[in-house]
Amino acid sequence: MPDFRLDAASLLPLFRPSSIAVIGASADAGKLGSIPLIHMKTSGFHGALYPVNPKAPVVQGLPAFRNILDVPGPVDLAIISVPEAQVMAAMRDCARKGVRAVILFTSGFAEIGAAGAQAQEEIKAIARDAGMRLLGPNCMGLINFTNGVVATFHLAFGPGLAPPGRIGLISQSGAFGGLAYQVAQDRKLAYSLILTTGNEGDIDVADGIAYLAEDPETAVILLYIEGCRDGAKLSHALARARARRKPVVCIKVGRTEAGIAAVQSHTAALTGADEIFDAMFRQYGVYRASTMEEFFDIGYAAAQAPELPRDDRIGIVTVSGGVGVLMADTAAARGLDVAPASPKLQDGVRAMVPFAATRNPIDVTGQIVGDMGILDRTLEMTLADGGYPSLAAFIGSIGRSPVNGPRYMEVFARLRRSHPRALLAVACLHNPEFRAALDAAGCLLFDEPTHAIRAIAALVNFRRGFDAPPPLSGELPAAEPLPAGPCDEATALAMLQRAGIPVMTHRVVHSAAEAAEAAAALGLPVVLKIVSPDIAHKTDIGGVALDLTSTDAVRRAFDEVTARAAAARPEARLSGCLVAAMVTGGVETILGVQYDPVFGPVVMFGLGGVFVEALKDVTFRLAPFGEEEALRMIGELRGLAVLRGARGRPPADLEALAAALAALSRFAAAQGPALRSLDINPFVVLPQGKGALALDAVIVPA
Amino acid sequence: MPDFRLDAASLLPLFRPSSIAVIGASADAGKLGSIPLIHMKTSGFHGALYPVNPKAPVVQGLPAFRNILDVPGPVDLAIISVPEAQVMAAMRDCARKGVRAVILFTSGFAEIGAAGAQAQEEIKAIARDAGMRLLGPNCMGLINFTNGVVATFHLAFGPGLAPPGRIGLISQSGAFGGLAYQVAQDRKLAYSLILTTGNEGDIDVADGIAYLAEDPETAVILLYIEGCRDGAKLSHALARARARRKPVVCIKVGRTEAGIAAVQSHTAALTGADEIFDAMFRQYGVYRASTMEEFFDIGYAAAQAPELPRDDRIGIVTVSGGVGVLMADTAAARGLDVAPASPKLQDGVRAMVPFAATRNPIDVTGQIVGDMGILDRTLEMTLADGGYPSLAAFIGSIGRSPVNGPRYMEVFARLRRSHPRALLAVACLHNPEFRAALDAAGCLLFDEPTHAIRAIAALVNFRRGFDAPPPLSGELPAAEPLPAGPCDEATALAMLQRAGIPVMTHRVVHSAAEAAEAAAALGLPVVLKIVSPDIAHKTDIGGVALDLTSTDAVRRAFDEVTARAAAARPEARLSGCLVAAMVTGGVETILGVQYDPVFGPVVMFGLGGVFVEALKDVTFRLAPFGEEEALRMIGELRGLAVLRGARGRPPADLEALAAALAALSRFAAAQGPALRSLDINPFVVLPQGKGALALDAVIVPA
Repeated sequence: MPDFRLDAASLLPLFRPSSIAVIGASADAGKLGSIPLIHMKTSGFHGALYPVNPKAPVVQGLPAFRNILDVPGPVDLAIISVPEAQVMAAMRDCARKGVRAVILFTSGFAEIGAAGAQAQEEIKAIARDAGMRLLGPNCMGLINFTNGVVATFHLAFGPGLAPPGRIGLISQSGAFGGLAYQVAQDRKLAYSLILTTGNEGDIDVADGIAYLAEDPETAVILLYIEGCRDGAKLSHALARARARRKPVVCIKVGRTEAGIAAVQSHTAALTGADEIFDAMFRQYGVYRASTMEEFFDIGYAAAQAPELPRDDRIGIVTVSGGVGVLMADTAAARGLDVAPASPKLQDGVRAMVPFAATRNPIDVTGQIVGDMGILDRTLEMTLADGGYPSLAAFIGSIGRSPVNGPRYMEVFARLRRSHPRALLAVACLHNPEFRAALDAAGCLLFDEPTHAIRAIAALVNFRRGFDAPPPLSGELPAAEPLPAGPCDEATALAMLQRAGIPVMTHRVVHSAAEAAEAAAALGLPVVLKIVSPDIAHKTDIGGVALDLTSTDAVRRAFDEVTARAAAARPEARLSGCLVAAMVTGGVETILGVQYDPVFGPVVMFGLGGVFVEALKDVTFRLAPFGEEEALRMIGELRGLAVLRGARGRPPADLEALAAALAALSRFAAAQGPALRSLDINPFVVLPQGKGALALDAVIVPA
Repeated sequence: MPDFRLDAASLLPLFRPSSIAVIGASADAGKLGSIPLIHMKTSGFHGALYPVNPKAPVVQGLPAFRNILDVPGPVDLAIISVPEAQVMAAMRDCARKGVRAVILFTSGFAEIGAAGAQAQEEIKAIARDAGMRLLGPNCMGLINFTNGVVATFHLAFGPGLAPPGRIGLISQSGAFGGLAYQVAQDRKLAYSLILTTGNEGDIDVADGIAYLAEDPETAVILLYIEGCRDGAKLSHALARARARRKPVVCIKVGRTEAGIAAVQSHTAALTGADEIFDAMFRQYGVYRASTMEEFFDIGYAAAQAPELPRDDRIGIVTVSGGVGVLMADTAAARGLDVAPASPKLQDGVRAMVPFAATRNPIDVTGQIVGDMGILDRTLEMTLADGGYPSLAAFIGSIGRSPVNGPRYMEVFARLRRSHPRALLAVACLHNPEFRAALDAAGCLLFDEPTHAIRAIAALVNFRRGFDAPPPLSGELPAAEPLPAGPCDEATALAMLQRAGIPVMTHRVVHSAAEAAEAAAALGLPVVLKIVSPDIAHKTDIGGVALDLTSTDAVRRAFDEVTARAAAARPEARLSGCLVAAMVTGGVETILGVQYDPVFGPVVMFGLGGVFVEALKDVTFRLAPFGEEEALRMIGELRGLAVLRGARGRPPADLEALAAALAALSRFAAAQGPALRSLDINPFVVLPQGKGALALDAVIVPA
C-alpha cells in the first residue's frame, strides 16, 4: 500500500521540539503573538524559547531577536503570528534558518476564497521545498500536555494547565479544540495532546492520527472532522490506529443538507458524501458520535477502562427496578448480552432479599434503606459469582449522600482492587468529590444510567473490531488495462470473470445460425442480448429477448434484436449478440463501484428491484476489503432476511456473494481512478452451495 | 365513548384533602408511619392531621387516636402504614369511617404472587363497596407541592420541600418517583404533583393523567410506565391531556426481551407489546424518551417554554462553526426547518464580521474575543430580523466566565423581555449561577448543544400533534353480529363492504354454468376461488384458479377447484365458488386487525409481499381513528416510496387507502372483543383517483 506521506517521525519537531521560536512575539497581552510565551513560561516546557520581534530586545522577560535568522542555535519549531502581509517573508526566513516545523496562526488564506487559496499554495511550496512540516494556516495550534509545548493562542490553556492524560484529540476546528479542553475540566478527561489543523495546508487529521497511533503517551484518539481531501490517506491512518488497538471516537459534522451547507460556509474543507464517511468508520471500527456529550463520554470510557471487556456479557445491579429495566433495554438494543445471573449469584441475592429481582438486572430494592450491606454484597457477588466482565450499577442518589457517598467511594475502590480486569461503570446522582474518588479508583462514572450502558457497548465494539481481520487484506491484483471508451457487456463480463467474479455461462455470436447453435449447446431456455459498447440500456431499445424456448425462436430473436438495435441506434457499433442460459431462482442483488474523488473506489452492495429503488437499502465500503468485511457489509442490509431465506425460500449462498464482493473490491482498488464506475445488475445469489452469478454488467472507464 | 371510570373529581379527596389520618403513625423515625407526619409538619399543609396509633395518646406532638373511628370529624384521606396482617382491619375501619380515599404503603400483595394477589382483591373489594378511592398497595404515595400534602414515606421530601412548579409526574415505580425529585434539585424542574401508583389496585396511571389534564396547576405531564392493564382507559386519559394541550413525556421501560424479563420479575404489571405502546404514543402525540436525561430534558423544556413554537423554523447562532453544523445536522434530522437567514439578517452580521457564516447557522467566529457586542447584536438581530420563532444559541464557555457570564445573564433576560413569544434555548458550559439566571429569565439552558435542538423539535412536535384533528373521531357504527365460528371469504368481503371498505367486484356461484355466466358478466379474465368457512389457506389445496381467459376455462376451473377442495378437505363445508374480475396493477398492501387483551382492537398496515415478510415494514394504531391519522400511519412505512410511485409507476390512491384504514378501524372498534382478528391480504391500492380494493379477507370471530 502507498505511504501517503504518513511520516510520523517528521512530526517529532512539531510535537517534541527542543527549541521554539515565536515570530511575532509580543509583550502586549492583547496580541495573539503574546500568548504562547505566556503559556510556556509556566507550562513546564524545558527547551529553548526564542521570541522574535524586530523592535523589542526583550519580550516578556526573555531576550528577543530581530529576525529568526539571528537566533544562535537551531530551531525545531517556529510559531508564526504575524499579519498576513508578513507571512511570506517569515516563512522564507524559517526555510533559510532550517526550521523543521512551522505553526501558522494567521488567517486570510484558503478560507476566504481564491486569492487566499493562491497565497496558501505559495506558503505550502516554501515549506515543501525546505522540508519543513506546516501546521495551518488559520489554525489554533497545538498543546502537548506531556512536555509543556503550548503552541496556541487559545486563552484557555494558561497557567494551571491540566495534567497529561491518555487521550489525543485532533480537531479541524480551533474553537472545538478549546472547548474540548474546557469540557474536560468537569470530569476525568485528560489529554496527552490537542492538535488543531485549521486549513490543513500540509499537516491534516490523518497525519495527526498516524502520529498518535505511534505515540506511547496516547491510548485513545478523539477526532473532530468537518471534511477530508484525501480519503485514502485518512483510512490508512485509521488502519494504523486500529493495528495499535487504539480506540478512535469521532464527531463528523455535515451529515445533512443543512449541516453541509453550513460546513461549506465555515471552512474550506470538502465535506464528502456522508455515507462514505460512515462506511469508512464502520470499516475501521471508529465510533461515530452524534452529540458532543456522547463523543466525550466514549472517549472518557475508553481512556479510563482497565481493558476492553473480553466478551459481550453485562451484569446490571440497580436500586430502582425501573431504571434496571431501562438499562437492560438499552444494553440489548446496543448488542450487549444481558445474560441471566448464575444460580449461585441469584441464590446469594435472594438469601438477603427474598423478593429481589435476581435474573439480571439485579434489583436490590428499597431493602437497602435498612441495610446498605445488601448492596455492597450484591456488587461483590455479581463480579465474583456472576463472572461478568462488565458491571453497570445504578445507585440512585448515593453519590451525593453525606453518609453513603464516602462509604461507596471505598466500596468501589475495593471492588476495583479485587477485580482488576473488570469494567465497573456506575451511574448515580453525585457531587464532585464522589466523581473524583470514583475516577481515581478507575471506575467509570455517569449521571445517566443508559450512558453507562452505551459506554460499555462502545468498548465491547472496539474489542470486536480489533479482533476482526484487518480490512485491508492481501496483495492487489495487477490492474488489467481498461478500454479507452465505454465497453460492451461481453467485454465487461469477461473482465469480471478474470477478476474472480462469477458470471453466467454465455457465448457471443454473430449470426442467427451461430445463435441457435449456442442456445443448443448452453441448453434452452436462453436469453439473447445485443452486444454494443454504445448501447448501455439494452431493454429500452428492444435489445433483449428473454425466455427463448426453441432454437427457431433464438434464430428469429437474433435477427429481430439486431434489426431493432440498428433502427434505434444507427450510429452504434454492433458486435453481435450474447446468448446465455436463463437463470431462475436466487435473489437479485446489485454490486457497484463508484470512484470518489476524495475516497477513491467505493463499493456498493444492495438488494435488487424494489428494495434498492424504494428503500435505498444499500451499504458501502472503501475498496479493497476481504471476505469477512464483505459479510459484515451484507449483514447491514435491512432486507437481510430475503438473503437468509424469507418466505420459505432456501438461504442464499452468502459465502459466494462475499467472495464476489471482495474480488470486486480488489479489482476496483487495482484500477483506481482508471475506473469511473461499474454496475453488476443483477447479481443473482443462488441457494447455499450453488454460488452466485453476474447476469449483466456495465463498466465505465474514466 | 365509555368513561372508563376516569372520574377526576373523585380523586380530589386524594390530592386536595381537608383532613388526613395516618394509620400506623409513629414517633419512631425508623418506621415508615412516622414519615408523612414529619414531612407535613413543615410542608405547609393547612388541613387537619390525625395520627392513629393504638398505644400512644400523642404522636410527634399531635394528639393521636386509638382508631380512625375515634377521629371526631370527617377524614378525606387515610394513609395506611401498618404491617400486612393489620391492613384488612384498617381498610374496614376506613370504610366504616366514611374515608373518601386511602393510600396504602404496605407491600406483600400482588407483587409477591398468587396469595398476595388474592389479598389485594379483598382490599379492592372493601374500597369499591365503600366508594373509597385506593392508591396502592405497595406504593410510595404522593406529594402535592401546591398544598403541602406530602403523603409519602420517601425520605427525600423532608423539610425544605421544593417550591411548586408546573410539571405533574406519575410513576409506577416509587424509587423512580423519588429519583425524579432528586434530579430536579439540579435544575429548574419543579413539580405540581408527584404520584406513584405501585400495584395499582384501583388508581392507575390513567386516573392520574385524567386528573392532571384538568388540574389548573399542571401544564406538563411526565409518565414513568412499566406496564398497563387497561389500554383503552390509558388512551382515553391521554386523549384528555391532548384536548387540554398539555404535553405528555413518557418513559416506558420493557422495550426488549431483556427489559421485559426484568419488568416481569420487578412488578405485577402486564408489559404489553411494545409496538402497541409506540402506536398509542404516536397517536396521542406523547413524546417517548429513551433515556432519563431525555425524559427530564423534554419535560423541563415543555414547562419552561413561553409557548409552543408557532412553526418549524429555527435560527442557530454559534461561537463555534463546527458546533453550529452539528446543531444544524440535528435540527434537520429531527424535522426542524433550518431556514436560511433573511438578507437583512445576513447583511447585518456580515457588516460586523465580513467572513462570518451567515446563512444559518450563524457563526460569529472568534471575532467576539475582541468585541463581545457582536454576539449580543447577532442574537438580537436573529430574533428581530430573522423572525424565527425558535432560537438555539451555542455560546461556548461563556456561562462559566466570571466576566462574560453575568453579562449574558442580562443579555438573555433582555432578549426574553423584548421577544416574549420566542423560544430561546441556550447551550454552553456554565455554573449554577448562570443556570439559575437563565432559568429565571425564562430561557431554556442545556449543557449539550444538540439537546437544545432536540428540545425545540419536541416542542414543535407537540404543537403539530395538538393542531391535528383528534385521533378518536366521530360516532362508531353499530356492530354487525359476527358469525359464531370461522366465516368464508364471501361472507367476510360482504361484511367489509357494508363497513365501507371497497372490495373487488365478485359473485358467488354454485355450478360450472353459473360460473361461466358470472365470468361473462364480470368480464374476462377472472379468478375463481373455493368458498368455505373451513378452508383458510385456499391456495395450499389448489382452491384458487387465476387468470381464466375463457368461459370454457371458467367452467372447467369450477369443477376442478371443487373436486380438489373436496378431496383435500373431505370434512369442509363447501359453499360454491367465488368469481371475480382479475385486478392488475396497483400496489399490494396488507390491512389487519388484532384484538389485544390490554389495548383492544389494534389495526395493522403494511406493504405486501416481501416487504412485510422480510422487513416487517408494518405500523400500528389503536382503533378507532380518522383518515388524517391513517395518512400519518401510511407515512411511517419505510417503503412509502412504493406507494408514492417508485420505479416510474404512478402514485397510488392514498386517500382511498386512508379511508379504508379508517373504516376498518371503526369496524374493529365497534366489534370490540367479538372480533379476534381480521386480515385483508392483499388490499390493492390502485393509481391515484382509481381507488383501492380488498382482494381477499379472513375474519376470525372470538
